[in-house]
Amino acid sequence: MNSKLNIGIIGAGRIGRVHAETIAFRLPEANPASIADINPQAAAAVAARCGIAHVATSAAEIFDDPGIDAVLICSSTDTHAGLIVDAARAGKHIFCEKPVAHGLERIDEALAAVEKAGVQLQIGFNRRFDANFARVRVAVASGEIGTPHLMHIVSRDPAPPPASYVKVSGGMFLDMTIHDFDMARFLIGGEVEEIYTAAAVMVDPEIGAAGDVDTAVITLRFKNGVIGTIDNSRKAVYGYDQRVEILGSAGSISTANCYPNQAVVSTAESVRRDLPLNFFMDRYTDSFVNELRAFVQAVMEGKPTPVTGIDGRIPVVMALAARKSYDERRPVRLAEISSLVHA
Amino acid sequence: MNSKLNIGIIGAGRIGRVHAETIAFRLPEANPASIADINPQAAAAVAARCGIAHVATSAAEIFDDPGIDAVLICSSTDTHAGLIVDAARAGKHIFCEKPVAHGLERIDEALAAVEKAGVQLQIGFNRRFDANFARVRVAVASGEIGTPHLMHIVSRDPAPPPASYVKVSGGMFLDMTIHDFDMARFLIGGEVEEIYTAAAVMVDPEIGAAGDVDTAVITLRFKNGVIGTIDNSRKAVYGYDQRVEILGSAGSISTANCYPNQAVVSTAESVRRDLPLNFFMDRYTDSFVNELRAFVQAVMEGKPTPVTGIDGRIPVVMALAARKSYDERRPVRLAEISSLVHA
Amino acid sequence: MNSKLNIGIIGAGRIGRVHAETIAFRLPEANPASIADINPQAAAAVAARCGIAHVATSAAEIFDDPGIDAVLICSSTDTHAGLIVDAARAGKHIFCEKPVAHGLERIDEALAAVEKAGVQLQIGFNRRFDANFARVRVAVASGEIGTPHLMHIVSRDPAPPPASYVKVSGGMFLDMTIHDFDMARFLIGGEVEEIYTAAAVMVDPEIGAAGDVDTAVITLRFKNGVIGTIDNSRKAVYGYDQRVEILGSAGSISTANCYPNQAVVSTAESVRRDLPLNFFMDRYTDSFVNELRAFVQAVMEGKPTPVTGIDGRIPVVMALAARKSYDERRPVRLAEISSLVHA
Amino acid sequence: MNSKLNIGIIGAGRIGRVHAETIAFRLPEANPASIADINPQAAAAVAARCGIAHVATSAAEIFDDPGIDAVLICSSTDTHAGLIVDAARAGKHIFCEKPVAHGLERIDEALAAVEKAGVQLQIGFNRRFDANFARVRVAVASGEIGTPHLMHIVSRDPAPPPASYVKVSGGMFLDMTIHDFDMARFLIGGEVEEIYTAAAVMVDPEIGAAGDVDTAVITLRFKNGVIGTIDNSRKAVYGYDQRVEILGSAGSISTANCYPNQAVVSTAESVRRDLPLNFFMDRYTDSFVNELRAFVQAVMEGKPTPVTGIDGRIPVVMALAARKSYDERRPVRLAEISSLVHA
Repeated sequence: MNSKLNIGIIGAGRIGRVHAETIAFRLPEANPASIADINPQAAAAVAARCGIAHVATSAAEIFDDPGIDAVLICSSTDTHAGLIVDAARAGKHIFCEKPVAHGLERIDEALAAVEKAGVQLQIGFNRRFDANFARVRVAVASGEIGTPHLMHIVSRDPAPPPASYVKVSGGMFLDMTIHDFDMARFLIGGEVEEIYTAAAVMVDPEIGAAGDVDTAVITLRFKNGVIGTIDNSRKAVYGYDQRVEILGSAGSISTANCYPNQAVVSTAESVRRDLPLNFFMDRYTDSFVNELRAFVQAVMEGKPTPVTGIDGRIPVVMALAARKSYDERRPVRLAEISSLVHA
Repeated sequence: MNSKLNIGIIGAGRIGRVHAETIAFRLPEANPASIADINPQAAAAVAARCGIAHVATSAAEIFDDPGIDAVLICSSTDTHAGLIVDAARAGKHIFCEKPVAHGLERIDEALAAVEKAGVQLQIGFNRRFDANFARVRVAVASGEIGTPHLMHIVSRDPAPPPASYVKVSGGMFLDMTIHDFDMARFLIGGEVEEIYTAAAVMVDPEIGAAGDVDTAVITLRFKNGVIGTIDNSRKAVYGYDQRVEILGSAGSISTANCYPNQAVVSTAESVRRDLPLNFFMDRYTDSFVNELRAFVQAVMEGKPTPVTGIDGRIPVVMALAARKSYDERRPVRLAEISSLVHA
Repeated sequence: MNSKLNIGIIGAGRIGRVHAETIAFRLPEANPASIADINPQAAAAVAARCGIAHVATSAAEIFDDPGIDAVLICSSTDTHAGLIVDAARAGKHIFCEKPVAHGLERIDEALAAVEKAGVQLQIGFNRRFDANFARVRVAVASGEIGTPHLMHIVSRDPAPPPASYVKVSGGMFLDMTIHDFDMARFLIGGEVEEIYTAAAVMVDPEIGAAGDVDTAVITLRFKNGVIGTIDNSRKAVYGYDQRVEILGSAGSISTANCYPNQAVVSTAESVRRDLPLNFFMDRYTDSFVNELRAFVQAVMEGKPTPVTGIDGRIPVVMALAARKSYDERRPVRLAEISSLVHA
Repeated sequence: MNSKLNIGIIGAGRIGRVHAETIAFRLPEANPASIADINPQAAAAVAARCGIAHVATSAAEIFDDPGIDAVLICSSTDTHAGLIVDAARAGKHIFCEKPVAHGLERIDEALAAVEKAGVQLQIGFNRRFDANFARVRVAVASGEIGTPHLMHIVSRDPAPPPASYVKVSGGMFLDMTIHDFDMARFLIGGEVEEIYTAAAVMVDPEIGAAGDVDTAVITLRFKNGVIGTIDNSRKAVYGYDQRVEILGSAGSISTANCYPNQAVVSTAESVRRDLPLNFFMDRYTDSFVNELRAFVQAVMEGKPTPVTGIDGRIPVVMALAARKSYDERRPVRLAEISSLVHA
């Protein structure tokens, strides 16, 4: 390996661009060497912007390039698992956006290929690298709040996606809640045993017509006894609402939203702030840099990545359990979905 | 009726004293005319403190007194229902502490007696009269936050009661959560259809040994579609934690805890506040005055009380459903507990 | 002295009523025995409300009443000094509203009479007894924030008084800032040596026409080196703004305003609170009770009052210095006003 | 001019590095073409990090380079004015760190050279480009809080500089307060007429021994009547304290500090946050990018820069007036320092 990690980027859409810029401008130890997209113009534009030397005609070309050390898979979800398999076979280390796939069979094929090849894999659960949630994890792991008893995650989008997207998204639990399932495991540092879902269509009837829900409260029972909830809504008119709270035996920790400024205006009507950050790209800017830095370091130092393949698999199991609970109106154990969980 | 409402007080314990002082010193339109307690010295002490002219030897003596317009029942829970029946038969208007009883049969007898006598009855769900929760109700009722979608109640005590108390308390759901069940109905202005309880013993094994739980997350499905949670813990080491949040189609409203002062200290270690108010008597001081003022006004003006007998009954049904859900680990419809709910 | 302290109240206006109710309903160790007002009907109304046995025809009648232990002087400012002299000669302990007088000569006569008579005198600087400011004083006195360096007081009224009042008020410094001068001395626990005033008429030209100012920033140099400011405005449209901040060598303490509730509403427009408490009677409710409790205790235990006559005199010196600084546009030492300061 | 603005950087110290990285990685419309430093190795290191093609042996070499469109002057303060003159004569547009110089004569020479050459000049008052202060300026300029009456700036460093630095810094007013003088003018959008300084040595006697102060409250009278204060301390143990508040006729706006996260920890001791950001590079990160973006845009579009040469001069006049006020213990009009102010 060179002194710089040479990285190939597959996918030049929104998140691909963000990662390309991070590699180019924020991580001196990495080099964006090659980029491919099904839309060659999109790939070329990102390459020009970020000083990427080579625009590849396909992902395969990147995998075949012996100068490439690692790849970022930023293409559409349905291609993730197959690209992981191909990349692993080519001996490339892999950073893949979430979710790995909507079905466990495909995930397991991908993870098996990774294991066989002995390459490293990191899943793009960027929120673990956000300053707020990282701080909460520290509080739990360090014992600052004692033994955790209760955990609440609030995760609300500012506006629902179009119904066309909903139809291919895999549903809210696989598309949106999956971040919160990962967050729950990350914050508590333990596994969930059973899930109960209360959900409904409250925001947009078209979402319901597409067979999905847009509002949910999901109760999680952890193996270690912690009880948690996830509050999801596809529409919080005031902006992107991303908070957690944990009550422990020695105290609690809670996080507030992030705002574009810290100004308070007091008038004859109210004492008010501007709205919180409205878009995940603004809210989680730093976390995208932090996760890639962690990936690059893990690969360069030959150490495990902080978000492994199994970390990508378990939230999918949780999403499937949450949906099953919703369909059957009863608590569902994760073991009903996959006997392989928590081996 | 005189120009002042003459009130008899049954029970001179902690809450009886608080109500006696309110009647004596805060409500000029009411007169504390008589007081009784199974401990005559306790009654005499409160009478002296509050200028109550007569210390009665029994509740019956108060009921028989033609000069008494209304009574406050502040004795132990097991006596509430019987005293309501007696007071109603004597034609007295009634303010009764919560809960009316632990069993529905006794409650229904009491409510029937009240209805037959045509007297007024108010249940002591004081938190409705707290400035924070009243403000949240206004936001919902006025449409300030649109149609409610999600509701969260956090209700944590600073420290668990002794196990001896737990044994006679009826259990956490009837003793502690009952306030939150009332709050849920009050805030949303609608009824709950189904309850799912995740609960455990995390705080004190003695509570578990007494057959009770000390930590719970209860999911509520309202008839109007709202999904809510109640977070209960018998021990929040930082103090009395009493908050709510409601997300609606047009916004959200949330309340913070109340503190003894508004000071922030910044040192080389942290930016910190003193702990929130630690005791319900400090936290809800004003609400106790407000609820009695509302009762006195309702009686004097011959209007319905703001917290009726049915408002006292339904939270008991909810508590029984919550326990059943916990025992059977499944969602329980309130109709399973009582076919009379929401007639 | 009886077991209860018998108190005569002179003045049945707004603050007289408040104090009468406190004595009647909040302080069991005190008895409101007599009340007088130049308007006998006002006195009679308060007497009826508060169960005061006697309505006196004059202050003199109260002073002559051997059953009276202490008096509250709640009449107009121009009568304070004379009534203190009369009360002292009659051997009554005295609680007097601020300011004692607008001129030092009258104050010194009053204080001399008090000293000669050996009675106790407390001045009505109620804000010392507010939970926020008391907490700040504790932080300073305990060393929690180290040695104080800088101090800021913000003290803004929600709306200016009518020009008719301004004309008899003695001017903003004697009428409004006098509370802040007292607060500065109280918080720091030391004396001011020099004052510089920057002030103007920004709110209401009529106030300027009456020879007064309505907006000011006053810089205070304390003998112990602390530098402080007082920010005054007669009009903060969002409500009564009462805050302090102190920076010390080991940290800072600052206080926020008080609000009618702790609710936050988030909509598509803003994240907002209701306005802070708008009226001093709401903001400082508890402090009025606390200051009288302290007075009654001091008298009953024969100990010094917490706000002495000299504490009433020095803020007047400061107000005169502040005005002189404004008139002459230069820093003014308190010694220029009174050589007797800080004897 | 090319499609990209070619920029030469003079000075490869801390702020030079920051600006070089901004030009290299954040501003696609600019190109870091050349860099010089009296320490050639420092220049070479930054060049390697940021992909700067040329390491110049002197500032003169950069000025002589016809391919350079604009220069950033990031060297020590005593060199600023001379370099401005040289750059202007070479026809380069100029971004210069604050302060331009400690003396007005040198500043005036520099500004004259800029004017004569017709180049653009922007002074590095980066805080104008901070989201908090920009928001406050919007509130004032838009009339959101009505006509400004009072303004307060709190600007405290986490720790004092070494005495060796103090000796060459020009003193606190020229070194530290100069940012606040600029902020005062920026926020109000008007000029100061008179300054009164209360200052002392409270933090470090060595600073006093060097003839400087470390703690100050400076009162500003603006021409438009606004009264303002600047609160400076060289040591706030809790971190970098950077806040402003403005009271206007229609409301107020105030800003809070910035924190590394939004987490609150509640334990049996306190409800607390981590400390605010402690270092100006963390606190003002974005502002450094924003100011250079504005400079590059102004140059490319041939429009005035947002912080002009006169904006660099006036705060120096204010600093000199503040010192004179401190020395003479009286308010000082800016016209006493320079008759050219506000021409």
